[in-house]
Amino acid sequence: MRKLLTAGIAAALIVPASLSFAGGPEDVVNARLGYYRLLGLEMDGLAAMAKGEAEYSAEAAQGHAANIQTLTQYNPGGLFAPGTSNADLPGKTRALPAIWENFPKVGEKGAAFRAAVAELNAVAGNGLDALRPAVGKLGGTCKACHDDFRATDY
Amino acid sequence: MRKLLTAGIAAALIVPASLSFAGGPEDVVNARLGYYRLLGLEMDGLAAMAKGEAEYSAEAAQGHAANIQTLTQYNPGGLFAPGTSNADLPGKTRALPAIWENFPKVGEKGAAFRAAVAELNAVAGNGLDALRPAVGKLGGTCKACHDDFRATDY
Repeated sequence: MRKLLTAGIAAALIVPASLSFAGGPEDVVNARLGYYRLLGLEMDGLAAMAKGEAEYSAEAAQGHAANIQTLTQYNPGGLFAPGTSNADLPGKTRALPAIWENFPKVGEKGAAFRAAVAELNAVAGNGLDALRPAVGKLGGTCKACHDDFRATDY
Repeated sequence: MRKLLTAGIAAALIVPASLSFAGGPEDVVNARLGYYRLLGLEMDGLAAMAKGEAEYSAEAAQGHAANIQTLTQYNPGGLFAPGTSNADLPGKTRALPAIWENFPKVGEKGAAFRAAVAELNAVAGNGLDALRPAVGKLGGTCKACHDDFRATDY
């Protein structure tokens, strides 16, 4: 069941009717923002090392990478409930309606992100020279989705 | 490494000096709020079924339970960086300074929470009569921590 859910993240972006969320649209948006803030906090820690703003630590780098990988195992279907775009809730989210109109493409970008996370996890503890390109690649997969599916401003 | 991190969550609440977070205190607070909003969204879905406000679905209940379990595998050490209590950042968080003064007790409550999550996962798909007490028990472990370590208001 667990494996099925993990493997099915991209597909699960189309929220099945059986998924019940009691929270209203704003609760969903706040949880979604929360998910990306968690990812962002871990990425910030990695980026600081990659840029030389923080000293490289194999333990810390591996810890951030592991936390990001854990977050990729969270099924985000419920975070993309219909009615939670920036057209539905202006000023509350930057999620463009295009997300809900292009689930297959969102899923592809999600798959690229998860692949980059796996690559990062394989090398994060192997020194700064190994970490840098892996962090860069992961950041690129973040940006690829933001470019198409996230508004610049609220 | 992964197993070690997961097993060491309680201990990890004491943030090791080697953990580098580039984000400032407000980034940490926002990510921490995000973590609990994710947990809250999943709990809302379960509570709605337990209370009869939403129809019971084994798939949905198991999905919520699995997502909560995934979140328990996220190492929250970085979310409890020093300098991020409601005394440090009034109005931004309800996290009481008592958290940082009682890490062993926080860890015990975290362990009770994780045990209840595991119990929930074992029964979530087995019908509403099995779900109800497991959700109630899990909610009790949330409350036990809130009572001691979270302010009522911002």
